[in-house]
Amino acid sequence: MSKPTLLTRQRTDFPRWYQDVIARAELADNGPVRGTMVIRPTGYALWERMQREVDDRIKAVGGQNAYFPLFIPESYLKRDAGGKQLEEPVVVRPTSETIINSFFAKWVQSYRDLPMKLNNWANVVRWEMRPRIFLRTTEFLWQEGHTCHATEAQARAHAREVLDNVYGEFMTEVLAIPVVKGRKTARERFAGATNTLTCEAMMGDGKALQMGTSHELGQNFARAFDVQFLAASGQREYVWQTSWGVSTRMIGGLIMCHGDDAGLRVPPRLAPVQAIVLLVRDDADVRVRAHQVVSELRDAGVRAVLDEQTDVSFGRRAIDAELKGVPVRVELGPRECAAGKAVLVRRIPGTKEPVALATLIPEIEAALRTDQQALYDQALARREAASPLVESLDQAREAATHGWARIPWSVLGEQGEASLAEHAITVRCLTRPDGSVPDHGDQPDLIAWVGRAY
Amino acid sequence: MSKPTLLTRQRTDFPRWYQDVIARAELADNGPVRGTMVIRPTGYALWERMQREVDDRIKAVGGQNAYFPLFIPESYLKRDAGGKQLEEPVVVRPTSETIINSFFAKWVQSYRDLPMKLNNWANVVRWEMRPRIFLRTTEFLWQEGHTCHATEAQARAHAREVLDNVYGEFMTEVLAIPVVKGRKTARERFAGATNTLTCEAMMGDGKALQMGTSHELGQNFARAFDVQFLAASGQREYVWQTSWGVSTRMIGGLIMCHGDDAGLRVPPRLAPVQAIVLLVRDDADVRVRAHQVVSELRDAGVRAVLDEQTDVSFGRRAIDAELKGVPVRVELGPRECAAGKAVLVRRIPGTKEPVALATLIPEIEAALRTDQQALYDQALARREAASPLVESLDQAREAATHGWARIPWSVLGEQGEASLAEHAITVRCLTRPDGSVPDHGDQPDLIAWVGRAY
Repeated sequence: MSKPTLLTRQRTDFPRWYQDVIARAELADNGPVRGTMVIRPTGYALWERMQREVDDRIKAVGGQNAYFPLFIPESYLKRDAGGKQLEEPVVVRPTSETIINSFFAKWVQSYRDLPMKLNNWANVVRWEMRPRIFLRTTEFLWQEGHTCHATEAQARAHAREVLDNVYGEFMTEVLAIPVVKGRKTARERFAGATNTLTCEAMMGDGKALQMGTSHELGQNFARAFDVQFLAASGQREYVWQTSWGVSTRMIGGLIMCHGDDAGLRVPPRLAPVQAIVLLVRDDADVRVRAHQVVSELRDAGVRAVLDEQTDVSFGRRAIDAELKGVPVRVELGPRECAAGKAVLVRRIPGTKEPVALATLIPEIEAALRTDQQALYDQALARREAASPLVESLDQAREAATHGWARIPWSVLGEQGEASLAEHAITVRCLTRPDGSVPDHGDQPDLIAWVGRAY
Repeated sequence: MSKPTLLTRQRTDFPRWYQDVIARAELADNGPVRGTMVIRPTGYALWERMQREVDDRIKAVGGQNAYFPLFIPESYLKRDAGGKQLEEPVVVRPTSETIINSFFAKWVQSYRDLPMKLNNWANVVRWEMRPRIFLRTTEFLWQEGHTCHATEAQARAHAREVLDNVYGEFMTEVLAIPVVKGRKTARERFAGATNTLTCEAMMGDGKALQMGTSHELGQNFARAFDVQFLAASGQREYVWQTSWGVSTRMIGGLIMCHGDDAGLRVPPRLAPVQAIVLLVRDDADVRVRAHQVVSELRDAGVRAVLDEQTDVSFGRRAIDAELKGVPVRVELGPRECAAGKAVLVRRIPGTKEPVALATLIPEIEAALRTDQQALYDQALARREAASPLVESLDQAREAATHGWARIPWSVLGEQGEASLAEHAITVRCLTRPDGSVPDHGDQPDLIAWVGRAY
């Protein structure tokens, strides 16, 4: 398959390639106010599909959506929630822990009210010195889950359930990104948390991206905001809490994990458009056939669209579909149609071959399944090849020049962590030797995954 | 059916009843910053259903979702979009016409780019002197559609298509609210529009609520932001535009149109929970049966939930379901089960009767259809009874003390409109004598619908 020269090559300048893809695939633009972004329809459609998939999973683990205000009293951030809200300054939320806890204090009365699991889809604002679209923007879109539980064990189990059944499952199965799930070190932990669990992904340049986190908050916020409940025992107790979030940053992760020199490659399960049927030239018979193919694809449950803009050159439309990463492209022209065929172009393996119209639909369905897996396998192979198990800080530093390293935490320790930090290398997470998520931080055989990160 | 005394009665004090419903049905709370609101899960579930239904219809008329930033440069509001964005003050968006047009100017180049139909689901902020939850809040959630077309006729047709096929259809078919669709007078028109179309609903107290608007913008914003395209003729021309929106205000309309002294009544097609199955007492056999009923309802496509919180009194749970307006309640106790029956309580007609378990599912399905229509019919009958056709301003003023009046625009005119405004009575919209939407404002036989409004 020809590689268009529209984009800077990844090997030449990965960050520049990233910006090029965002511009050329029409994913987003910089907003007029520094650090803000405009998410264009092609980019927003990815976000809508992510939202739908994550939202379904949040609801499956008992979450309920709610909406908390954009503006919070400034005093909340100092945790001295007072009654002077009419006079005091307000701030735009950077996160909603404080305002949500001020309502938990009101809504949680008895053990019967627990667990309370709320989730808020919202925009939040954090001034960024060096903004980069999707990765670090002043305003971004996210979901933030906040839950209250009667016991520490229940809160811990829920933080883990969200990591596994909401984020981990979504990222591996839908985004086709083989995330490493683990716990953060004390240094990397969210300030208000007693434990932070994370999903870490390796990008095409070997750097890490934190894709989502799930925190155990202990009783920290409950004490600060006086969130107590009457236990079945008759005693008043502070609740145990969790919070967790994923954001539009995942779009950046998707681009950098799967993209290539021709643009984006969208995993079929996520893709807003799974198959695009291109009418090569304006021809009445071919047009009828193209409509029929789209209709059959939709009947088979494939998200398909027809491109019959024959006043735009065929080459330009084909390149646009490549840039946007549409998994399957069907090219229909008079010659192919006359022969009872169509040309099937698969974005992920980069193949292009004639297929009989009679078997086109099942071939596309099979391709979508196969290519979803292929994308995951490629990303996993890259990560495995670039995550050697090392025995010293020097080796870790060397590995982190082009990927990650795994190093025993007993070798690294907090001192080694601080030393790597001087080279902009951080511990992305700690796992057990078999790669599973550790229950406690003090296990002796933990493995630290280290690398440079976005 | 017993009417609980939890709420102020509508006849006693309608605004107080409204606040009571919002609090007792746990729809929303006031936020700590004046004029903001917290939308609780029960209220947000209504909004999510509204979003889904409206979003599907927006996409069906060719709309694409995008996201524009919260912050816009202050200069945009003065329409002198400059390059000093790093130094100038920023404002939180009250609406996005200005920032979206600054991007249309970049994205629209040729007739091939038209029509461009974007929609943004977002939060917007407008300081309100007298906030009221859902109706007038400092921050609210909405969608704003913004479109560009090659000709005035196409823009006009699109504004009308959104009024009819998105808003009107959704409000009558899903919300069961018989909105009057018409055009605004020059006095009531959106400042930037050449024509404003509106959906107006009558609330339980006879006042009007503007439920949604669709504007023809002519070339006003196109000229201010220089949005031009190269026409097929080779000439550069300004685009013709529309904008349109609905907001969380619709939740207020739903409450006030359908609610009664027992609380909310949610139309079945909208209801996040269409049927709640209540386990009267903790009993193993009944529990099995209750799970089975819920499962059968879900198989039949009914959104059903099980309430087995038998540690909360049955009466309290029944009242809660009434308050929240769940269309159908199934009460299952040992006695009913032993007799092969359940008690079917329908919120909309307020009936309660034993039904054989063997026919329960089809009876519920029929009830949901019947009650959807009944809610619409009740609201329509109320509106028709309280919208007399009158011949003078005095009669219009009299009618508007408890409802609306219809008065020939030739009788009222702009002078009469100004005179009614002194009594806080406004022209909600103009229609043709047969109730249909007028194409032009200058037709001689238009009817003005007048009333007090929220």
